[in-house]
Amino acid sequence: MIKTFLVTGAAGFIGAALAKKLVEEGNLVITVDNLSTGFREGIPEGVEFLNGDCQDEKTIDKLKSRKIDAIFHIAGQSSGEISFENPVYDLKTNTQSTLLLLKLALATGCKKFIYASTMSVYGDQENRLISEDDTTFPKSFYGIGKLASEHYLRLYEEYGISCTALRLFNVYGPGQNMENMKQGMVSIFLSQALSANRIQVKGSKYRFRDFVYIDDIVDSFLLAYRSNQTQFKIYNVSTGIRTSVETVVSTILENLSKDMTVEYLEGTPGDQFGIYGDSSLIKHDLGWTAKTEFTQGVKNMIIWADRKSRNG
Amino acid sequence: MIKTFLVTGAAGFIGAALAKKLVEEGNLVITVDNLSTGFREGIPEGVEFLNGDCQDEKTIDKLKSRKIDAIFHIAGQSSGEISFENPVYDLKTNTQSTLLLLKLALATGCKKFIYASTMSVYGDQENRLISEDDTTFPKSFYGIGKLASEHYLRLYEEYGISCTALRLFNVYGPGQNMENMKQGMVSIFLSQALSANRIQVKGSKYRFRDFVYIDDIVDSFLLAYRSNQTQFKIYNVSTGIRTSVETVVSTILENLSKDMTVEYLEGTPGDQFGIYGDSSLIKHDLGWTAKTEFTQGVKNMIIWADRKSRNG
Repeated sequence: MIKTFLVTGAAGFIGAALAKKLVEEGNLVITVDNLSTGFREGIPEGVEFLNGDCQDEKTIDKLKSRKIDAIFHIAGQSSGEISFENPVYDLKTNTQSTLLLLKLALATGCKKFIYASTMSVYGDQENRLISEDDTTFPKSFYGIGKLASEHYLRLYEEYGISCTALRLFNVYGPGQNMENMKQGMVSIFLSQALSANRIQVKGSKYRFRDFVYIDDIVDSFLLAYRSNQTQFKIYNVSTGIRTSVETVVSTILENLSKDMTVEYLEGTPGDQFGIYGDSSLIKHDLGWTAKTEFTQGVKNMIIWADRKSRNG
Repeated sequence: MIKTFLVTGAAGFIGAALAKKLVEEGNLVITVDNLSTGFREGIPEGVEFLNGDCQDEKTIDKLKSRKIDAIFHIAGQSSGEISFENPVYDLKTNTQSTLLLLKLALATGCKKFIYASTMSVYGDQENRLISEDDTTFPKSFYGIGKLASEHYLRLYEEYGISCTALRLFNVYGPGQNMENMKQGMVSIFLSQALSANRIQVKGSKYRFRDFVYIDDIVDSFLLAYRSNQTQFKIYNVSTGIRTSVETVVSTILENLSKDMTVEYLEGTPGDQFGIYGDSSLIKHDLGWTAKTEFTQGVKNMIIWADRKSRNG
């Protein structure tokens, strides 16, 4: 029996990767995307495209007559930094949208809802491995809106919808938007390196990130969908490995045979010094582990970017 | 020098009481109210009234040229139960409104922002005194939206706005809406007793509440405004006293010399079993204490309701 999935934001980095995988597995995939940061041509072949906002009730209502086996809600403004430019928009795109999609799940009898949350819900923490039950002090409008969405999912457990919030750490890999200079440390540095032979770092080189490769992220969504759990669950999708900004830069430099200058500038508002996540819960419950090491992931990304630039 | 205050929701119970006090003290008071649950005639004399939604940017923008010494944000849908009827409306009225008013504070150079939050941010807790640093697991859309607003206030500390979130426990007293049968345990029971000689209790009589009298609530807002603190602070506004539903009923019965029947029915969604709050932090920082005992408060309310019914 062919399954039907709604993957919001399939014109974007993570949504496209997940939608592509689901199509390859022989499923029907619908997406809602407003193309505000994603690209029409980024939507994988075979995906049914509804052009509109997930925070717009009229758009979401168009799906009311569909049978949907699971909703993967990935669309939304996805940068802590950018959320300071228009907090009301951020609230609508990341929080109001979740309410409307949960309502859609209820109306269509959809029993699975998997949400792309974020490590930004934690805010700054002491320098130690962060678990799902640690306190949440988001430092950006983005993180606050994502946290509110998680709470909504928790309420929907009582309506018989099995909800999972995946707190994604720093996602990177082929498919990431190399034009967006405000988001994605690896893509920003790599893009600078390829286009200008110069990497500009905003903030300290001692900051660190917990990088997760895009294929591993896609796996986490699939495993969450296949799980038999009915209770609301929150999972870190993280490696537990601290990779410093300095290491990101040196990994790129080592894998590009070019001369390069590196500059250090002031930081950006709402940026986190560093946070890395304990993933033992998702490993225990869903059997998920991060399979791609950072060096390998960066190599894959360089090959992809190189091929992309040659194909125009 | 005359001060100018914005008190949102002055057509409602708490907003009206605070606005009245501020006018009596010789201040200029402006209110924004959409009259969705409040009443035009409830707005105290002398208050400048702007009819509109606090979640509507055009309405709030009308105040941009004003000099405002403090914003007391009290307007908003205020029932956990009702928030289940229209979660998107709840998000707008309780959360989007806060963003717009914080933006207004920034634009007008207003340095003080005091927010009516709620004990509903805690959700169900073990049967013990709740402190401000206890975990927050709101059980209603209402509680989730209020919690998100608190996080916003925290971010605005960095913009030099001194923000306080008052987590109000169960507010009651003269001025409460006696027509609203979905909100306010004391007002609901009293209204039933006066009009039908019958009290209908939805849920267990062993549930309890931490009741705070309206004059004490007004005091908490005034003390928060007068405080010299600049850091973001969250305070319980509570008595620390558990009053069971059964006691509420018996207190009303004892003070009304009428025959009365009492019925127990099923509970309502999102209702809390019971929660009572530690108020030592607000006592320590602001010198606030609850001055009105529950029995006295109920007596005052009966006298007020009686006078009101005779004056039509």
